[in-house]
Amino acid sequence: MKDYIGFLREELAAHQALFTQLEALLPQISEVGQALRDCLARGGKILLMGNGGSAADSQHIAAEIVGRYKKERRGLPAIALTTDTSIITSVGNDYGYEFIFSRQVEALCSPLDAVIGITTSGNSINVVRAIEVAKEIGATTIGLTGGTGGKLAALCDYNLVMPSNVTARIQEAHIFIGHSVCDILEAD
Amino acid sequence: MKDYIGFLREELAAHQALFTQLEALLPQISEVGQALRDCLARGGKILLMGNGGSAADSQHIAAEIVGRYKKERRGLPAIALTTDTSIITSVGNDYGYEFIFSRQVEALCSPLDAVIGITTSGNSINVVRAIEVAKEIGATTIGLTGGTGGKLAALCDYNLVMPSNVTARIQEAHIFIGHSVCDILEAD
Ligand SMILES: O=P(O)(O)OC[C@@H](O)[C@H]1O[C@H](O)[C@@H](O)[C@@H](O)[C@@H]1O
Ligand SMILES: O=P(O)(O)OC[C@@H](O)[C@H]1O[C@H](O)[C@@H](O)[C@@H](O)[C@@H]1O
Repeated sequence: MKDYIGFLREELAAHQALFTQLEALLPQISEVGQALRDCLARGGKILLMGNGGSAADSQHIAAEIVGRYKKERRGLPAIALTTDTSIITSVGNDYGYEFIFSRQVEALCSPLDAVIGITTSGNSINVVRAIEVAKEIGATTIGLTGGTGGKLAALCDYNLVMPSNVTARIQEAHIFIGHSVCDILEAD
Repeated sequence: MKDYIGFLREELAAHQALFTQLEALLPQISEVGQALRDCLARGGKILLMGNGGSAADSQHIAAEIVGRYKKERRGLPAIALTTDTSIITSVGNDYGYEFIFSRQVEALCSPLDAVIGITTSGNSINVVRAIEVAKEIGATTIGLTGGTGGKLAALCDYNLVMPSNVTARIQEAHIFIGHSVCDILEAD
């Protein structure tokens, strides 16, 4: 049997190096958490979207907010725009895959809401278009990205840009941030 | 504005402490990666399941395998049992929520397959029942858990038990392991 341990050790070291750098982002994570608290306090809801692993992160975070993270409390309003395959395939088929999220933002988003776009490159066009529509509506926009932050970082009110160019590592940091934001939402 | 930075710093430290301990699990992660390579090599497929954040992880990992992780290659067979809401609501409604995964394993699993149950407590009954059915079928069974490993750790052929009792931290380790296993699947 081949042994992948040396290789895995390098991946683990890369993960830990990135997380050491997250220390510098804590003030920004705190600000995003506060912006989401403000959104819910004014009666807004949280919309989330992303492709692939970032779709999974969108659903993970929505589940923590609608269901429960750590605390017993009422269900809070969050919607992952990645789950309704009837909407996604109809909009994708009739208008194009780049509109699968923006169409839903057009339909569901109010100026009171916060819209979170998750893309490791910052450049997935369906996420970029959706954030553009959210801005037109006047919602709070938040980008979770990596690398340079890509196109999204030029658009959003709040940007959390992971200092890495490796998709997997960026996603691992994103879900830590998702959990952190849920901690802030559930704080007294 | 309230400042959550001190609190976030503690969460980050807890994450890093857990990941330092993952070093000791690398041989087991390597073994699980090899078991999944063997499964695909013999013509089997990979089934994944979990609740909440672990459902998101199941879909995340299936997406990396069916789609692409880092490398251009053919699509490989993985199915997250967490996505078909028609199946989940009909089985949940007619038989009970505890059968939503086991019914799908009964329907979809062959002895060539590998079945991955993801549960931070190790005790979610719908995951436990599905692993029991997978064992009866003769598939390879893999548990991704935390804490003591719970009921699942007594059942599975391979157990990756995260040394933490905090659901969020365990999930953060699980997605790192999911990525690591994809690295092994895509290795030459
Ligand atoms: O640049 P992003 O918006 O993060 O898009 C990446 C996704 O399309 C997916 O690409 C590959 O399939 C994998 O790296 C996935 O993890 C990723 O989510
Ligand atoms: O013990 P588990 O199988 O991991 O089940 C936990 C889940 O039901 C979910 O519980 C809460 O909703 C949250 O902690 C979620 O993150 C978790 O996935």
